This record gives sequence, structure tokens and C-alpha cells, in this order.
Amino acid sequence: MNLPNMLQIESLLSACRAETLTPTDIVREVVARINAYAVKDPAVWISRVPTERLLARAVELEGQPAADLPLYGIPFAVKDNIDVAGLPTTAACPAFAYEPSESAEVVQRLEAAGAIVIGKTNLDQFATGLVGMRSPYGQPHSVFSPEYVSGGSSSGSAVAVAAGLVSFALGTDTAGSGRVPAAFNNIVGLKPSRGILSTYGLVPACESLDCISVFAGSTSDAWKVERIAGAPDERAPYSRALCSRPLPLTTFRFGILRKEDRFFDGNEGNAVLYARAIRLLEQLGGTPVELDFAPLKNTAALLYSGPFVVERLAAIKEFHRTHRKDMDPTVGTIIDDAEKYTATDVFEGIYRQHGFQQVAQRMWADFDVMLLPTAPRIVTKQEVIDRPIAANSLLGAYTNFVNLLDMAACAVPAGFAPDGLPFGVTFVAPAFTDEDLAALAGRFHEALGEAVGAARTDRPMGEKAEEIPSSERVLLAVVGAHLKGFPLHWQLEQEHAVLRATTRTAPDYRLFALPNATPPKPGLVRERGFVGEGLEVEVYELDAAGFGRFVASVLQPMSIGRITLADGKEVCGFLCSEAVARSGTDITETGGWRYYMTER
Amino acid sequence: MNLPNMLQIESLLSACRAETLTPTDIVREVVARINAYAVKDPAVWISRVPTERLLARAVELEGQPAADLPLYGIPFAVKDNIDVAGLPTTAACPAFAYEPSESAEVVQRLEAAGAIVIGKTNLDQFATGLVGMRSPYGQPHSVFSPEYVSGGSSSGSAVAVAAGLVSFALGTDTAGSGRVPAAFNNIVGLKPSRGILSTYGLVPACESLDCISVFAGSTSDAWKVERIAGAPDERAPYSRALCSRPLPLTTFRFGILRKEDRFFDGNEGNAVLYARAIRLLEQLGGTPVELDFAPLKNTAALLYSGPFVVERLAAIKEFHRTHRKDMDPTVGTIIDDAEKYTATDVFEGIYRQHGFQQVAQRMWADFDVMLLPTAPRIVTKQEVIDRPIAANSLLGAYTNFVNLLDMAACAVPAGFAPDGLPFGVTFVAPAFTDEDLAALAGRFHEALGEAVGAARTDRPMGEKAEEIPSSERVLLAVVGAHLKGFPLHWQLEQEHAVLRATTRTAPDYRLFALPNATPPKPGLVRERGFVGEGLEVEVYELDAAGFGRFVASVLQPMSIGRITLADGKEVCGFLCSEAVARSGTDITETGGWRYYMTER
Repeated sequence: MNLPNMLQIESLLSACRAETLTPTDIVREVVARINAYAVKDPAVWISRVPTERLLARAVELEGQPAADLPLYGIPFAVKDNIDVAGLPTTAACPAFAYEPSESAEVVQRLEAAGAIVIGKTNLDQFATGLVGMRSPYGQPHSVFSPEYVSGGSSSGSAVAVAAGLVSFALGTDTAGSGRVPAAFNNIVGLKPSRGILSTYGLVPACESLDCISVFAGSTSDAWKVERIAGAPDERAPYSRALCSRPLPLTTFRFGILRKEDRFFDGNEGNAVLYARAIRLLEQLGGTPVELDFAPLKNTAALLYSGPFVVERLAAIKEFHRTHRKDMDPTVGTIIDDAEKYTATDVFEGIYRQHGFQQVAQRMWADFDVMLLPTAPRIVTKQEVIDRPIAANSLLGAYTNFVNLLDMAACAVPAGFAPDGLPFGVTFVAPAFTDEDLAALAGRFHEALGEAVGAARTDRPMGEKAEEIPSSERVLLAVVGAHLKGFPLHWQLEQEHAVLRATTRTAPDYRLFALPNATPPKPGLVRERGFVGEGLEVEVYELDAAGFGRFVASVLQPMSIGRITLADGKEVCGFLCSEAVARSGTDITETGGWRYYMTER
Repeated sequence: MNLPNMLQIESLLSACRAETLTPTDIVREVVARINAYAVKDPAVWISRVPTERLLARAVELEGQPAADLPLYGIPFAVKDNIDVAGLPTTAACPAFAYEPSESAEVVQRLEAAGAIVIGKTNLDQFATGLVGMRSPYGQPHSVFSPEYVSGGSSSGSAVAVAAGLVSFALGTDTAGSGRVPAAFNNIVGLKPSRGILSTYGLVPACESLDCISVFAGSTSDAWKVERIAGAPDERAPYSRALCSRPLPLTTFRFGILRKEDRFFDGNEGNAVLYARAIRLLEQLGGTPVELDFAPLKNTAALLYSGPFVVERLAAIKEFHRTHRKDMDPTVGTIIDDAEKYTATDVFEGIYRQHGFQQVAQRMWADFDVMLLPTAPRIVTKQEVIDRPIAANSLLGAYTNFVNLLDMAACAVPAGFAPDGLPFGVTFVAPAFTDEDLAALAGRFHEALGEAVGAARTDRPMGEKAEEIPSSERVLLAVVGAHLKGFPLHWQLEQEHAVLRATTRTAPDYRLFALPNATPPKPGLVRERGFVGEGLEVEVYELDAAGFGRFVASVLQPMSIGRITLADGKEVCGFLCSEAVARSGTDITETGGWRYYMTER
């Protein structure tokens, strides 16, 4: 079969499950594509699993039912600062290379789910850079032009996905290394909340901030990978369990840059694309709110112009002392700089970081998510050669602060400027919102309606993005004293319930005014076979804990069960003891409690 | 009126509300007691609010209704590293003293609630110590003996409460300064989760670890103070909102020291008292589980024998450089030691801290709370003079690790050894459990049945401890397919529901086997006037979010409402559409679903 240009997970999986495609087919196609692409860009890979081992792994998978493995036969790449057993880990520094005895925890989890490691990808040395130019293994370029950088530090991983060589790739992201290359190659870069993906088996850059990240062709693919790769791991000092935190997905507020903060370093095309992205997100139910970028910018300064650079030294202290001459000159200079900081400087920097976190925390009162450019503009390789530090700093303008402030981020494509070069935007939200953040960024990406990756002729998602359900939100239909304007509505407000719809029940419900209820209340009862007009209900959305508290406060004779709405969907809602309800007055004909109470 | 020896909050408040006591009476009594106690121990206070200002504050309060203010007229003391406008802040170092322009956030919140600041209390200089001996303002002693230390660093605050000079006192706690003095003076020391009480207006010791703490005569008093004083404050870099996390209170597992780890430095009396405390907690529903103390001990080493001492230097860097000779010799030596650490040492220490946090995290799978000695034994002033560092280190054996691992702690009295000196135990639990931790420690303290503070003749609590309800836990009665051993029980397990009771409903319920239900299910229906035997139910406890998810999964014709149990209490539980239920078979006489299904 002909595989699509972008090897999105669901398309491969369904073909495998339909037995029109085998892991062996996938391996052969991937190897052929890699060989062909190497002519165009030989700097994507640092090492690769030999083809015979890939084929053996494919055959091994073919002995198992495809339906049992959520990533059956899915090919992926691994940034070469993450251990894969059988391949050296170089961190793009040959003198540093070692042979790991086991794969990183995330790699093991993905392989256990049926995925196939294809090889290790190029990066800025020790993940220090956003350009992809700081490697002795060559400099990958953007899939759209050999003159332009791929972005970094996860340079090879982003190109491998965008060029359709693998379905997804692991990157890492401390200052933006998992987002900037996504923007420069027109793909998705999901930077999970810190600690969700174990860093066991990762060469640290800034250990307190490092996140393993995911490049993919869609947000649903990226989230699927995060979900499978993520698990608490006590061997990783910053590991955390993902306690999923919801975001509003249909009606929401999003923070945007003020006009005076919209810095694109002279690229007018990107300015237009950012404004267009704002309008698109408005059309998807968002209300834009201008944000104060100053504290975020001040936070970012801690990373390279402050004591966090000491972490980069701590990560390779012995190597730096004994092998300084073997390091990339730019990376070496950056890390040398760490030696000027004292122990008290470090704590003072950490206090400033926490102070900024307080300010950022307050920002979330004004909006649910931020929509920022991923980078001001893409740069040429020549610009980086001419000004290696300044060109790099430019790229981190909108990414550096994110990990210092403990946020999650999802970079998605946002179109092409008139010069034919890609622009990206990043959705940023508080830690633990990963699932909903990916879903919201996915709605945007899908609505954008443009092809993903190098292959601008494909439809962006292959098919419609998987619906990402959330077990953390509940819809609740209310029918009486909890309606807006009625005496118990405050109980919903207390739990921050959001009105999602005003609609009617299915026709086979009756409503009764209860006798002697304080405040006055109706009781809703389903009567199979009865055909009425349905009763008006308001449907609210609550998070699970709020819903739980709410239900716990419901008193006899009321209860909470499923209610069937006029459109056949079921939501949670108020029911009533039928015996008690039928001892009251049948007010079904009024059409609902609000009408009954108004008429009275 | 005669005030009790211990000035517990509720007894003063109810007298004020009954108008048998006024704030002026309280102020006069407190001033008289302070003057009397100064003869016994002149080292409790560093500065005091002049009596005329106290009386003016009392009169000001008397212009307001007592019922409006939750701390109306309640006298309290403030450790002298926390700002109170109008009094100098010395941190027990006269050369460091300054006049704050405003009170610390916590002091402001307590005053707004009607409390009266009496004065500033003595401490180990810069809160560096656990002995109470490192102050140029004198050395307070335990209320039980002038030969023995008060404990520190919050020395004066603990003595002021234990001697009945104030109702409560603010301390601070980095390494145990809010717990050790509680043990040595037979009172409660509540160390909140880090960040719940704002540190705005506090002279830092280790800014990343410092907690303002509360000394009081009961855990309910201490929790009340925490609840009122606590609020997010963006001026405090480590501020966090208290998202209350529940603990099981009636049936629970508690971690205890293995026999070989029970170190009391030769004090056999304390060993017996610790064993007695374990038995008492077993009687209260706890199951003891031996814990591995090694990782906690290794964590503790980071605090003084590791780079966290650098924080103490960072806090007073300029002062240390210019006024080293003005510092307490022991404190000065400890802080000098910080200068040997490098910037990379600091990050490496922080990584080790986070690594230990992962290990500690796993421990909570084995038990809900730890029960530890607060300190191995009390020491004499002479011992500290002879060995100022070693005697101090001894006291932190069971407290140093707590803040490094982000835990909450509540120290409570645990009786007196044959030598007449007090022993204390500390309940330790994960961050954000503060409310339930105080409640559980309170159950223990109350069950101990001994007087609190210096006045060993009072009843410990004055009256029965306030019931502390939690809105975060819900009781759910199940009656059918969710019973233990039945097909849908996994849904409860998935939400970590805990079985609390197997009991029966009130007599006026009927149970029906539903027709065509898969899996087989009964429907419970209340029928007013019917008198049966009640139906067997299992009552589970869930947290609100788990309960919310559970309810959201309930399908027609079931619903969740209140069920009345045989003892008249109401809990949430399964109900059923009456029409559907009555179309099935009445199985009320079997006594419950389990019996019906067994008999079939």
C-alpha cells in the first residue's frame, strides 16, 4: 500500500488492524524514506538501529495481535540525549558518548506499547540552543528551505516527523527546544507538564526544568504518546503523576500579546499570521484578553542571564573540567559563564523564580490559556553563524519562561507567511492541563485547515481529530430551584459551573410541583410511553470534584441520575422520588419550572 | 471572672459572647500573668505592646459585636522574626533590628479577625537552632524546669502559650522550630504545609523551606488560627493556596519507627511513652506499619550538613559581611560554613532533595500518616553550653526532614516520663492535609486525657474538640452490583473508595430485583409508612472528585440521592426509578441483595 506523506498514528494503526499493512511494510518504507531524505539533509540522524534489527522487531510484533498494542508498529525517533539500549548516547558531543545499559523509561514504555525505535536524532550539543546549529554531526535545516535552520535543540527529531520519516519523535524542552523546531517545520510540539514523562535515562540540561517532549503530526497523536509514555518514576527526581486538570474547551478566555509586545523582529508576515490566529481562536469560542508580558520576559532572563545556567554546568561538571576543548565553542562559552555564580546567587535566582510564579499564578485569573507566537521568526543558518548567541536568543523570546513558571505548552502550526516559511503559535496553560491543552490546540489546528509537515498537500489531520474525552468534567441538567435566577443557583456558582446549553428533555418526562418544598421545587419523573413537549432544562458543566460536592449536598426526595435530552443525548440531572413527585401538582404542560413560576 | 490556666480560644470566645468577659478583662489578666511569669522566666519576650495600647485595642474591639469576629479579644504572641508594626523586628540580633512599616500578612489577618498582639517573643538568633539558647535576650526554659531548655528556635512563643500568657503564638518552623518547643512545653505545635501562611513580613531562615507555625493549647485552636491566618499572597514567593487533601480519620494506617530506629539517646521513659502512643493510636482505629527511616535521615542531612545552609547566608548576606562580630557565636559559625559551597553544590543538593521526595512519595502508599517522637529527649541548658552544635543536632533527629520533603506536621503532647519531663509525638502527613492532620492529632491528644501546658491540672481541651467536617469526602451507600464481590465493585475501587461500614437502611425502604438488568441489579425505593427490617448497605467513603466521576457514570434507571440509615443518619446512596423498580420482584424480605443473590 501507499503510505501517506505524514505517518500519523491512527492511519497506520487502522491499516495494521485491517491487515492491509504490516510492521515489516512500515519498516521498509521508513528505511527507504530515510535513505532518500539523507540526500536532501544528511544531518537528521546521529545513529540508527540497523535495518536487520528493525525488521526483526517488526517480525516480533507480527507475532502479537495488532489490537493489543496501542502503538503497534508505529515508528519513532529519539533525540540523542535520551538513552536507547544498543545505541550510543552522544548528546551531540562525541567525546561525551557512552553506551547505555538500558533504555530511558519513556522509551521502554513506548516500546512496550508496540512502537519501533528507528534511531537517534541530532541536537544542539547538550540540548543547549534553539537553533540546531551547535552540533558536530551537522546542521539539519527546516524542511521548507536549506537556507533556514531547523530550530533546536531537538533539531533532528522535528525534521524526522515533518519529513514523514517517523510517526512521532521524542525531543526535550527546557527553554523551548520542543516547540521552536515544531514551528519551523510545521508540526505539533507538545511540551508536557514537568515530570509527567520520566527523565530517567536523559542527559540533563537544566535538571530542575527539563521536560521530555513529543513531536507529531497532530495534537491527538502527541497526546496519545504522552499518555502512554507518562508514568510516575521515583528514579526521576522531578517526576510527578499527571493529576489531570480541566480547561474550558468550548467557551474560554485566552491571553494574547498587547500590540506593543508583538515582536516579530521585522517579519510583517508573522504579525499578520498571529492576528489571524487570534481571530480563528475567537471563532472557536475564545475571548481574547490582553496579557502583561513583562513578568514573563523578566522570568525568561533567569535562564541564560541568571543562575539557572549553573544547572548546565552541574549536569556535566566533570566532563567540562576535563574536556572543555572537546565542546562546541558556543556551548562551551555559555557553560563557562556558569562559573561566575556563587551559591547564594543560585538561591536568590530560585527565589526570584518563585516570585515570578506568584505573579503568573494571578494571570490565570484573567484567562484560561495563553496564545503566543512560538518564535518571532525563523532565522537563516548564516545569521546564526554571524551572531551565534543573539540569533539564538531571538528564538526563545516566547518560550524561555514556560518551564520556569511550571506550565504546559503545545506548539501547533499557524500558517505560512508570503515568503513561504512557516509560522507557529503555542498554547500555554498551567501545569497538569496537558490533555485539555492538547485538545484545545487541536481544535485550532484542525480549524486552520492546512496541511501539516513538509507535505503541504495532505489534509492536516488525515481524518478528523479523535475526540479527546475528559473524565474530569460532567454535564448536569437542572430543572428547578437551581436554574439561573432561582434560589439554589448559588450552589452551582460556588462550584464554578458553566452554563453550556438551555434545552429540553426527551418527550417522556413529567414535571410536578412538590408539595411543601422550601424553597419551592419541582420533581422530574420519566414515564415510559408518555409523549409530551419535554421540559426546559439548563445544562451546566462542572469539574468532577465540584460535581461530587454538589451531589453530596442534594437532599431527599431529590436525586441525581441520567436524564435523556430532546436530542437523545444523556446527561446527569435532577430526578425526584416518584411517589413524592406524584403527590404534587402535574405542571408538565407549562413546559418547565421557569414558566410555571412566572405564570403563578 | 477567673480565667482558666490555659487561655484556650473557645473558652474566651464563649465568655465574651455571653458578656461575662470583655477584651479589657483579658488584657488586664494577660498583663498581670506576664508580669508574674517574668519573675520565673524573664527571657520569654523581646518586646511588648505597651499596656495602654493593649487597653485601647481592647476598647476598640468592644465597639464591635463579639459574634462578628472569630478571634474576638484573643491574645497572641509573635515570634520576633515576624513583623509587627510599632515594634522592632530583631530576629534576636540587636544589630540587625529594624522598625517595620507594616505588620506581616499573617499578623494583619489575625488582627482583622479580632485577635490582640501582646508582644514579640524570644528565639534562637535568625531562627537558627532548636534549643532556645542562642539569643542575647536571654534563654527561656521549659515551663517544667529552669534547668532544661525551652526548645527553639520559637522558644518564647512556646513558653508564652504553655504558661497561659496568651491563647496562641506564632512561631516559625524550618527544621523543627515550631515542633520541638511544643514537645518541651506540653502544648500543640502545628506546622502548616509550606506556603499556606504567607511569609511576607518574615525574616527568612531558609526561604525555600520556612513555614510560619502555630502554638496553641489544642489542635482545634491551632487549626482555627491557621485557617484564619492562611491565604494566598503573591508577595510571598512560596505562597500556595490550601487545596485541602483528606486523610482517613477513623480507620487508617500509621507509619512508626522500627525498634532499631527508636533512638531516644538513652531516655527509657520516652521509649515507653512512644510505645504507649502507638498503642493509643491503634485503639483509635489505626494500624501501625513499620517505616524505613533511612531516607528520612539522609534527607535531614541536607539541611545543616549540605547546601541548604547557603539559604541562611543568602537571607542575611550583607549583614553577615558587615556585622559578623555582632552575631551569636554559634549561629555565626553555622552560617560561615555556607561559604564553602559552590553554585553547582546548591543545585546538586536540590536534586538530592527532589530524589528523596520521590522516595518519600512512595512511602505514603504504605501508610496515611507517620507517628514519630517530636524529639528524642529534652536536654539541659548545661548540655547545650557544653556542646552547642551536638546537643542541638540531637533535637532535630525527627523533625529536620519534614520541610525538605514538603510535608505537614502536628506536634502534640504524649505524656510525662518518670522524671516529670514532657514527651511529645508528631503526626506527619503529605502537604495540604493540614485540616485532617490536625483533626487526627486532636483525636490522639484528646484520648491521651492529660492536661496541656504548664497547668497539668486542667483538662486538655477545655471542652470536647470541635468536629472538623470536610467538604472533600462523601459517604456513599451501595446496595446492589457495587457491593464488595459484585460485578460493578471495581468502579468503587477505581476511585479508591474505602469501606466505612456495613449497616442497614431505615425501615421504610423496599428492594426490588430489576427485570432484564445486566449485570443483575436491585432498585431501592423509599415508601413512607412501610415498616420492614431495613436493607443491608455498604457505606463507602470517597473524595469529592472520585464521587463526582462515579455519579457521572451512573446509568438509568439508577440515580444517587440521600438514603436514611437505620440509625437515622443520611448518606448518599443508590436510588432507582420507582416505576422501573416496581416492575420487578419485591425482594425486601431477603434483607438485601447479597442474601437474595446467595439464596437464588
